[in-house]
Amino acid sequence: MTSVAIQDLYPDEFSYCYGCGRLNLHGLHIRSFWDGSEAVATFMPGPHHVAVPGYVYGGLIASLLDCHGIATAAAVAEQAAGRQVGQGPVPRYVTAALQVNYLAPTPVGTVLEIRGQPKEMSARKVRVAVSLSAGDTVCARGEVVAVQMPESMGGGHGT
Amino acid sequence: MTSVAIQDLYPDEFSYCYGCGRLNLHGLHIRSFWDGSEAVATFMPGPHHVAVPGYVYGGLIASLLDCHGIATAAAVAEQAAGRQVGQGPVPRYVTAALQVNYLAPTPVGTVLEIRGQPKEMSARKVRVAVSLSAGDTVCARGEVVAVQMPESMGGGHGT
Repeated sequence: MTSVAIQDLYPDEFSYCYGCGRLNLHGLHIRSFWDGSEAVATFMPGPHHVAVPGYVYGGLIASLLDCHGIATAAAVAEQAAGRQVGQGPVPRYVTAALQVNYLAPTPVGTVLEIRGQPKEMSARKVRVAVSLSAGDTVCARGEVVAVQMPESMGGGHGT
Repeated sequence: MTSVAIQDLYPDEFSYCYGCGRLNLHGLHIRSFWDGSEAVATFMPGPHHVAVPGYVYGGLIASLLDCHGIATAAAVAEQAAGRQVGQGPVPRYVTAALQVNYLAPTPVGTVLEIRGQPKEMSARKVRVAVSLSAGDTVCARGEVVAVQMPESMGGGHGT
């Protein structure tokens, strides 16, 4: 497992994501770690992150899976380029599509574990299978289609 | 168009959702209005709700579509039961599945419009087509599969 979070390897100008950017002061700060074949993250929802009392908000779950899937794609791309994850900046992907199946209510007060496994890769796109568990229960499974950030979005710096 | 938000018709104990609960002090307070055939909401992202500077965070977009789709389902169910939306409490649905296709980067600094249209309804389930626009540009389209809240989740009150 890498000791540095994949998101901490994004260039500074791409580190403001509400979900995972280390420079977003108000964000969730999701941090994903690469172990060579999959990425793993843990996250403790806040008491306000509920759908109904006692259960985690589905939009938060979607956010966790989204940022974690994107980080997985960046790590996969880095590895495919023959570089070790953790040695330098990683490419920034964005989400083309997100699918989440909510399999079981997700309890609050528990650290959630999120996993991402690459399923398919092409020149500009990585398809990542993602899941979220609370203890032994897989509460959500889904898929993130990650594409390399288009130049048009890179032009939005600092706005 | 109803003058009361669909989410304001949820019973108090189900009004703590981070996305749309009027009683969640830290939430997004998404509010959806029913016009008889579809639901419409508007939302102004905060400056911290970015993916990369200048563009709205995909997890927020997923959250907006999720809560709006659930509200659409509640309105549809109310109407199907022969009641007018706005006259009393509406049933609380939860998300079984969420699909989002991100069609174009969503600019910050613009009020977003979210629409939800029912596609299919059965005894316990409503399938809702959702979209999110910035001005004339449809930035995301997706689908929410909403199911009536299981009793197990209703048992989580106050925890």
